[in-house]
Amino acid sequence: MNAHVPPKDAKAAPTSVTTGPIAGSRKVYAAPRSHPDLLVPFREIRLTDPNEAPVRVYDPSGPYTEDAAAIDLAAGLPLVRESWIGARGLDVAPGRAVKPEDNGNVAADKLVAPCPAQRVIREAARGQMVTQYEFAKAGIVTEEMIYVAHRENLAREAALEGARERHADGDSFGASIPEFVTPEFVREEIARGRAIIPANVNHPELEPMAIGRNFLVKVNANIGNSAVTSGAAEEVEKLVWAIRWGADTVMDLSTGRNIHNIRSWIIRNSPVPIGTVPIYQALEKVDGDPLKLDWEVFKDTLIEQAEQGVDYFTIHAGVRLAHVPLTASRVTGIVSRGGSIMARWCLAGHRESFLYERFDEICDIMRKYDVSFSLGDGLRPGSIADANDAAQFAELETLGELTKIAWDKGCQVMIEGPGHVPMHKIKQNMDKQLAVCGAAPFYTLGPLTTDVAPGYDHITSGIGAAMIGWFGTAMLCYVTPKEHLGLPNRDDVKTGVITYRIAAHAADLAKGHPAAKVRDDALSRARFDFRWEDQFNLSLDPDTARAFHDETMPKEAHKVAHFCSMCGPKFCSMQITQELRAEARALEAQAGMREKSREFLEQGGALYVAAE
Amino acid sequence: MNAHVPPKDAKAAPTSVTTGPIAGSRKVYAAPRSHPDLLVPFREIRLTDPNEAPVRVYDPSGPYTEDAAAIDLAAGLPLVRESWIGARGLDVAPGRAVKPEDNGNVAADKLVAPCPAQRVIREAARGQMVTQYEFAKAGIVTEEMIYVAHRENLAREAALEGARERHADGDSFGASIPEFVTPEFVREEIARGRAIIPANVNHPELEPMAIGRNFLVKVNANIGNSAVTSGAAEEVEKLVWAIRWGADTVMDLSTGRNIHNIRSWIIRNSPVPIGTVPIYQALEKVDGDPLKLDWEVFKDTLIEQAEQGVDYFTIHAGVRLAHVPLTASRVTGIVSRGGSIMARWCLAGHRESFLYERFDEICDIMRKYDVSFSLGDGLRPGSIADANDAAQFAELETLGELTKIAWDKGCQVMIEGPGHVPMHKIKQNMDKQLAVCGAAPFYTLGPLTTDVAPGYDHITSGIGAAMIGWFGTAMLCYVTPKEHLGLPNRDDVKTGVITYRIAAHAADLAKGHPAAKVRDDALSRARFDFRWEDQFNLSLDPDTARAFHDETMPKEAHKVAHFCSMCGPKFCSMQITQELRAEARALEAQAGMREKSREFLEQGGALYVAAE
Repeated sequence: MNAHVPPKDAKAAPTSVTTGPIAGSRKVYAAPRSHPDLLVPFREIRLTDPNEAPVRVYDPSGPYTEDAAAIDLAAGLPLVRESWIGARGLDVAPGRAVKPEDNGNVAADKLVAPCPAQRVIREAARGQMVTQYEFAKAGIVTEEMIYVAHRENLAREAALEGARERHADGDSFGASIPEFVTPEFVREEIARGRAIIPANVNHPELEPMAIGRNFLVKVNANIGNSAVTSGAAEEVEKLVWAIRWGADTVMDLSTGRNIHNIRSWIIRNSPVPIGTVPIYQALEKVDGDPLKLDWEVFKDTLIEQAEQGVDYFTIHAGVRLAHVPLTASRVTGIVSRGGSIMARWCLAGHRESFLYERFDEICDIMRKYDVSFSLGDGLRPGSIADANDAAQFAELETLGELTKIAWDKGCQVMIEGPGHVPMHKIKQNMDKQLAVCGAAPFYTLGPLTTDVAPGYDHITSGIGAAMIGWFGTAMLCYVTPKEHLGLPNRDDVKTGVITYRIAAHAADLAKGHPAAKVRDDALSRARFDFRWEDQFNLSLDPDTARAFHDETMPKEAHKVAHFCSMCGPKFCSMQITQELRAEARALEAQAGMREKSREFLEQGGALYVAAE
Repeated sequence: MNAHVPPKDAKAAPTSVTTGPIAGSRKVYAAPRSHPDLLVPFREIRLTDPNEAPVRVYDPSGPYTEDAAAIDLAAGLPLVRESWIGARGLDVAPGRAVKPEDNGNVAADKLVAPCPAQRVIREAARGQMVTQYEFAKAGIVTEEMIYVAHRENLAREAALEGARERHADGDSFGASIPEFVTPEFVREEIARGRAIIPANVNHPELEPMAIGRNFLVKVNANIGNSAVTSGAAEEVEKLVWAIRWGADTVMDLSTGRNIHNIRSWIIRNSPVPIGTVPIYQALEKVDGDPLKLDWEVFKDTLIEQAEQGVDYFTIHAGVRLAHVPLTASRVTGIVSRGGSIMARWCLAGHRESFLYERFDEICDIMRKYDVSFSLGDGLRPGSIADANDAAQFAELETLGELTKIAWDKGCQVMIEGPGHVPMHKIKQNMDKQLAVCGAAPFYTLGPLTTDVAPGYDHITSGIGAAMIGWFGTAMLCYVTPKEHLGLPNRDDVKTGVITYRIAAHAADLAKGHPAAKVRDDALSRARFDFRWEDQFNLSLDPDTARAFHDETMPKEAHKVAHFCSMCGPKFCSMQITQELRAEARALEAQAGMREKSREFLEQGGALYVAAE
């Protein structure tokens, strides 16, 4: 791994990020048979046992984890989708001129220069098909759909073919995960509104991915500077770092100055969909006063960000004037930033939300670029006390209503969900969302299952995330250990992503995803065989697994030892079991074992099964 | 907090441990009205808002967290139970002489001296009542039961009386948690076998606690030296450190030399029940060769440890010869140390387990001292692939059979459970355990919900622990980040305990425990009011919460700031909500708000509810 060296000057252009493969893995690209030109990325974990096939895992990390990654941040990433989009005959737009307010009217000496990479700006003409939803409804399979199908399959034919392991089981709560994902299946899921491929036509660098309950559960990580801190270099590194450890999409929640130019660096260098909350930037443009917001400044911001290539927008159009009083008796009021901004706006003038009233126009803008909706849960509960209350569910009903409008307009839609919910109230969230939002993908923040552990909210929420993922949530928004306390640093981002990869994987296993168990089984076999290197490399975080092992047993010889420092050599159950099996085989060779087994069985030992 | 200074010499006698209150808290002792002599410990978290009552929380940390803790490790802790036990007329035993093999035949210059604190050794005569189970069955309410009832209530009358918060709800899956716990309720639960109070008559220092699904969910932490490392001082500090952060019981899994003398230091200084796995020491006595084990050495070890005051023994009597072949096709074989030792023993001589065959005699020994059974799950699955298999459930059936025998003999019993189980197979474990073990308390290790994250197994297992705790597990055995990799250090122990306190608390909330939500609500109110100090102090780990906050906002002034570095001042939703509420109040004062609400309602705004 080539570590990133942070620049000293916050306004410096990004020059380096963390590159190189994850320990023990190599990046591979594979094409579906029918489309040899589509190079779909995977990570392959090599194992030391020649009888063990390498394990192919899903890989959102982009070219950064290639062996000899040649990254030029000023030029941006390769244009994976350029030829596909180019063939769709979209209009080339002149592009909106950048205004000083886009960067918070920052003084010239504090201005971060934009990413120099130039891209054609495209948009659809009125009535021209452009979104994945429109193509899917028309029965057209796009390159994005073919790419996604191959990506989701994880070479599972090969992995499952020679499998020693039993077939996956699970309880999917009504999800319909197929044995193998075909492009046609992807198209159908999108046409039904049950999945989205967030893919702005102005983000040609994107490696397409799907969000839907019949695909692998995805993870989002948030980045973004706060009022103080972080320049473009830091934000690009946060992006690269988050996807390195497994973030499938990244939301840029930046506020403050230089927001437009920092975003240009992020998008040009992102292989994953980028989401934003446009109301944040709109608020910056009106000096942070919610009451000064209006449709014009919001609309202008949507166009600005859509032209830059943002793949999905959080739009808090469900926070209606009538819902605000429902929050009056809450313990923690409104905890969504966007939600509280809109509630304030509505209440101050006693007027209906302009996001709600202008929803048709928002759809028209987003459709032009295929920006997906992430309908924001501005009234999500901020505490166990407020979970599943009238305000939350009133907003969810509105989001259901808006989902249908957006679909009618040709847009892709997912729905954001809570928040803070005790375990016994989690399933109701999923069931209600499925019912009122027509099975549009659910995208939840946690939920946190208790409020008593600030400093550990990746764990309080990881529990809820695993459960709601199992129940049907398509994407889990990570929570870091710093939640409620401060801005996450590099370690916090990694901890948050890994925790959520655990939750997503536990959910895939429990849903009975056909490919999920392959990695667990490979790791378990490595564990039983004392293949320490393989155990490390199959872990979600090989570096930490290895470091923990080496703390007490640093020597190279210990990497083949038949024990670890936890139990020591005499008490290693796996070692004893291996001896036991050897003994059983010896006994069997003496013909004793099988015979005695039979005797036992005849004596009524119903539980007894003869060893193979 | 007074930090522990570790001694340089591993055989040095322990002299200091970590003492002092947890930040923001003070230790209080309170007596039930009917028994002013029973001083039951609690931790009280003071809040800065004069309108907020202090929050009283359960506190297993013993006298170590008193304000001016006067700890003399050589003298041991105060004898909380001495007068109660003394009044029961038990025989005073001469005590078994310590043998060189008890300490692994360690050379004189490497011998750790035993704890000098001398205690009378007691045992029950044949037919004399001694166990909590026997008293309960006879309708007798012991001091231990009264103590436990008061401890479990957490002053909830007071906390719930003036409560602004709504009443607790939950889904308890058939648990019967009362509004208030009475001594009679405790007696009844024990008599039914649904709860235990692990309390050896030779552990008078114990602060009694209950394990049962109708009480607060408990957490166990494991300590113990490994083949290399750790003397008595280190182990006592591990104990004190684990209970400081919330471990309700501690298992001493030591192996190797000095095991007897180190245990004397641990028990004399432990306010929580101590559990052990006697087969570990028995194996040490026969030079680590499972085939040399026999009933005599095991029996001698039981008596040795029972006289020292161990409160519960893990006994792997369910690993029967007939079950061993059921593990033959497993991916990870047998992963319990005790299970693999017994399986080896059985298979080598093709003989039934002596633990199973001598179970009556084991009961007789354990009853004499009121050592509780923790019936070991020697065949628990060690991987997702092996979860809920025939071997595991065959053993569980045997444990059910043994439970009834132990009850007939007058013993208290709990049942150990897995292990590694994907989410969709967790509930079956709980349901089956309840069915076949007569509702004896379940005590599970995790379970881990995936195998792919060595280095993060506190999280993979914390997910499963929260769920199985919700479903009815009475005690959760912690897993640290080092699981499968090495021996946990101090930080790992703390991380493991806090993670499991989260799981246990999330389970209590979801079960609808009447007192659980008090702390969540207090913290959420502190959050909404920007009382940062109160948020830190109400956290399970005040030190970490504060440190995380201070990383980006170190100044004292920031402790009253109406924002944190996560969102910054302009984007703080809670601040905006407060402004919004102020605005709503102002509007209302102008008589506009209420009137307009009415208009809206008349216009069909069914979702609208007027602000209070």
